[in-house]
Amino acid sequence: MTEQPQNLPDRPDIARIFGEVLQELRRARGLSQEEFGFECELHRTYISLLERGKRIPSLTTIIQLATALKVPPSEIVRRVESRLGWPIEKSHTEMRH
Amino acid sequence: MTEQPQNLPDRPDIARIFGEVLQELRRARGLSQEEFGFECELHRTYISLLERGKRIPSLTTIIQLATALKVPPSEIVRRVESRLGWPIEKSHTEMRH
Repeated sequence: MTEQPQNLPDRPDIARIFGEVLQELRRARGLSQEEFGFECELHRTYISLLERGKRIPSLTTIIQLATALKVPPSEIVRRVESRLGWPIEKSHTEMRH
Repeated sequence: MTEQPQNLPDRPDIARIFGEVLQELRRARGLSQEEFGFECELHRTYISLLERGKRIPSLTTIIQLATALKVPPSEIVRRVESRLGWPIEKSHTEMRH
């Protein structure tokens, strides 16, 4: 077993980066927060809180958002982990410093 | 724009399938719930609730679990969405019925 790079990011970072990714995906679909909230059956205020990194979504919420965005939920998480600099196993020999 | 297949799964399904995926990944690493809980700094009881589909994890928790499992968080979500039969855009021409 290899040594584990235990660089777990802070919660505020996770929330902030998730919010950035969510906002980008929403804008890419040309939706306002209100229209998007309607699509995913979530309140516009909650969308705004998520985008500003003030709330952390549950897996259910991620799936709800992804359905409205028409992207796989794993793609949203992949974008978040990529920005967090997740140490993906298959590339741990070429990890950035 | 194509018509959206709005088959959002139920919350209990999401929780149950997440629990199955989590248990399989934990067992594949040869860890007991207690050992795994120690690795991810979550209580064994909470691990048990997650595995039995009694709790839905937040994105932060998914990242915590993935770090201890040494798999990307998106890979966990990918496995869940695959079992939920997520309608991935690029393959919607060959969707199963």
